[in-house]
Amino acid sequence: MIDLYTTSSPNGFKATIALEELGLPYRLHHVKLSAGEHKRPEFLALNPHGRIPVITDDETGVVLFESAAILLYLAEKTGQLLPLETRPRWEAIKWLVFHASSMGPLLGQRVHFEMFAETRMPIVIDRYRQLTEEAFATLDARLADHPWLAGDAYSIADIATFGWTHIAAVCDFSFAHHLHLSRWHERVAARSAVRRGIALPAPATGP
Amino acid sequence: MIDLYTTSSPNGFKATIALEELGLPYRLHHVKLSAGEHKRPEFLALNPHGRIPVITDDETGVVLFESAAILLYLAEKTGQLLPLETRPRWEAIKWLVFHASSMGPLLGQRVHFEMFAETRMPIVIDRYRQLTEEAFATLDARLADHPWLAGDAYSIADIATFGWTHIAAVCDFSFAHHLHLSRWHERVAARSAVRRGIALPAPATGP
Ligand SMILES: N[C@@H](CCC(=O)N[C@@H](CS)C(=O)NCC(=O)O)C(=O)O
Ligand SMILES: N[C@@H](CCC(=O)N[C@@H](CS)C(=O)NCC(=O)O)C(=O)O
Repeated sequence: MIDLYTTSSPNGFKATIALEELGLPYRLHHVKLSAGEHKRPEFLALNPHGRIPVITDDETGVVLFESAAILLYLAEKTGQLLPLETRPRWEAIKWLVFHASSMGPLLGQRVHFEMFAETRMPIVIDRYRQLTEEAFATLDARLADHPWLAGDAYSIADIATFGWTHIAAVCDFSFAHHLHLSRWHERVAARSAVRRGIALPAPATGP
Repeated sequence: MIDLYTTSSPNGFKATIALEELGLPYRLHHVKLSAGEHKRPEFLALNPHGRIPVITDDETGVVLFESAAILLYLAEKTGQLLPLETRPRWEAIKWLVFHASSMGPLLGQRVHFEMFAETRMPIVIDRYRQLTEEAFATLDARLADHPWLAGDAYSIADIATFGWTHIAAVCDFSFAHHLHLSRWHERVAARSAVRRGIALPAPATGP
């Protein structure tokens, strides 16, 4: 059985959406960041970096943090959400890692400086607007001639990317001028497993 | 045959080190960022995001960008540098993704604001010092009771992480107070494939 430790947040939604898509049984543990639960010894034993999401799988003894690693694990465990043939498989992994390394962390910085930082610093905000706009444009070009990021099939690359386009939409970081990305976002948002995933472990109240 | 498009830089070194460790034959193409070669149509056809490294493999038709995806591909192709048993395999992938998502991008921001930004912004510099210090501390704790990030065996997780600790050292971003991380860094730096990898495609002149 899988145990998921998470909260309502972009990286957390990737795990809840994937588990809902796969229909895997799992136990959901709500880690309340506002109460500092992610810095308690019990949680740091699972992830010494003190971040959600984390999964444990008592069938294999695997303990994982980093949402992209969790998605890859769930896909390999079930043989789903990741194409089996070589080229589409590596397209999926490439776009999964693109998300994890070149999109998510930069959107995270943009959220910080645009929404939360005490001092408003236009130079820094512009930097992260430009870098996230480059990531959006790269995704838009990919989706101009492929329905899904891996090619023909919906995969963990779409789930990862949606975790953050969903939050970008909530924060009014517009990507409406990227038509292919916007249409893809609506298609993902309409899936019932995705609608369930973004309401777990509790209805989201923002980033 | 593998073609690698890269330059002397933290993300590029991950690919050259891995190829040198594996002894795989490859053709090396030096992409000169200062000449804008990464924004030319021929290169954007390989990586529309305009970043190095990129590999192509004419045996499989795979074209990959994102250094962590490249490392995983080379490991799976050769059955090396990634443990085969379930738990150590996922330890390796977890620390590979930790590097790609929670360490590399933040060190990249620190290099920008501490070394290159026209305006010196202490609040922003402090933010990235603190976030990269948290990543160093997390790695140090892992290496306190394991010789390598995946556990007993040197793997692509070590190669990825070294790509950036090498640059941190070049930039004088000290992690000497993290004894386990420092000793691990010296052990990786002493490997002959690593010494070759960080001098390709040309001796490094800094970040
Ligand atoms: N790269 C990590 C990022 C994880 C992360 O930053 N999680 C946030 C919530 S979305 C968190 O736990 N933040 C708490 C903190 O930074 O103290 C992943 O993809 O899982
Ligand atoms: N997440 C990517 C980052 C790639 C990256 O940022 N590469 C740098 C060199 S280390 C680059 O090509 N920079 C050129 C630019 O940003 O214009 C990876 O790990 O491969």
